[in-house]
Amino acid sequence: MPNPTAAILVIGDEILSGRTRDANMHYLANELTHRGIALKEVRVVSDDRDAIVAAVNALRTTYDNVFTSGGIGPTHDDITADCIAAAFGVGIDVRDDARAILEKRYSELGHEMNEARLRMARIPDGAALIDNPVSGAPGFSIGNVHVMAGVPQIFQAMVASVLPKLTGGAPLLSQSIRINRAEGEIAGPLSKLASDFPDLSIGSYPFIKDGAYGVNIVIRGAEGAQVDAAVTRLCTEFAEFIG
Amino acid sequence: MPNPTAAILVIGDEILSGRTRDANMHYLANELTHRGIALKEVRVVSDDRDAIVAAVNALRTTYDNVFTSGGIGPTHDDITADCIAAAFGVGIDVRDDARAILEKRYSELGHEMNEARLRMARIPDGAALIDNPVSGAPGFSIGNVHVMAGVPQIFQAMVASVLPKLTGGAPLLSQSIRINRAEGEIAGPLSKLASDFPDLSIGSYPFIKDGAYGVNIVIRGAEGAQVDAAVTRLCTEFAEFIG
Repeated sequence: MPNPTAAILVIGDEILSGRTRDANMHYLANELTHRGIALKEVRVVSDDRDAIVAAVNALRTTYDNVFTSGGIGPTHDDITADCIAAAFGVGIDVRDDARAILEKRYSELGHEMNEARLRMARIPDGAALIDNPVSGAPGFSIGNVHVMAGVPQIFQAMVASVLPKLTGGAPLLSQSIRINRAEGEIAGPLSKLASDFPDLSIGSYPFIKDGAYGVNIVIRGAEGAQVDAAVTRLCTEFAEFIG
Repeated sequence: MPNPTAAILVIGDEILSGRTRDANMHYLANELTHRGIALKEVRVVSDDRDAIVAAVNALRTTYDNVFTSGGIGPTHDDITADCIAAAFGVGIDVRDDARAILEKRYSELGHEMNEARLRMARIPDGAALIDNPVSGAPGFSIGNVHVMAGVPQIFQAMVASVLPKLTGGAPLLSQSIRINRAEGEIAGPLSKLASDFPDLSIGSYPFIKDGAYGVNIVIRGAEGAQVDAAVTRLCTEFAEFIG
């Protein structure tokens, strides 16, 4: 059975302006790989209603799971929840269970509920809440779309709430070999290896370190014996350039 | 006149698997902002022909400039140049000027030209080469699409070759103020500020540091006097929580 697929949608001008470097994509990419869910696409869009709605609809109809990051706070530029409702064509309003979570939280902290904070209890019709043990305000899942906060600590806590509920797949096995040789020197034998092991994914990732060229070869597959056989052959062919 | 727009397309399974954390997006986002080119969207797709062709065509017809990163090396998994040719519906073959650059480079280094390396001289018909002072093998521009290597040192050198040739825009002015208060406490006054300054973009980026909540407010606009006026009002309203 093929592995389930996923896409990530990062929402926020602060990433696109270069002011902030996104951390959520890399974090979730690793978590998905561990669970055997194949991340196929990432998009970053600005805080723009049309852009968000179009991206949500393109991704949710293409992949098994979509995860969004950002835009669900209390301020005027937090428009993700409304965009998700628009993408699904459903209504959105303050929901009692979400409001109760916020009221309990603010009461514990001695903060006041106010109009801005109440916006965080607005949930699209038919969604299920995602627990936020960090700051209270919940995310939500609707259909195959999981809507989470952009602050990395909260995003990670929400990922921990959501992932165990999803269907995973057989974890893809992967081995990585570093070869201290320019990519152009090993491309021929590597191509031969790839065609001899058609069920494996063999990726070649060049790097430059301290002025020297090298390549990380990553061999991925579902069958451990096949991965091992390909790794053994590669290590034999390039023994003098490994280590 | 509105600022020119741009999108970035990052090509590579290694980012999606979480093995590598992308650095090119963040680097280019900053460079574009400095030149007054508005980055509107980023996509990351896997080493898959259909996915690359579809993304290139969607982005190049939507934005003024598209920058791609990755997949132009000598190995079997480097398919970007062929995908770009397919997206534009043009041919692709080894080109004499690109081959001459590679031959000169390898001769200087005492390396041999081989079939794999010659793949890096395959350039879509009608493209202009992008200089690669780091490792020789050129990128290329075709139409409004600029195709560059994924290795960060090479990517950055190619960006330096390409950007001066593009039409920039008036740099957007931006000021950032850190307020040591939870976002929900300042959302009301902030929303009022945003509606009083409709020509400015006022972004609110919450964070958690050492267990305390705070917000970075970023105010962007083309008119320095307006940005200053908004910053002054914000600093006056929240004087006790700044610093």
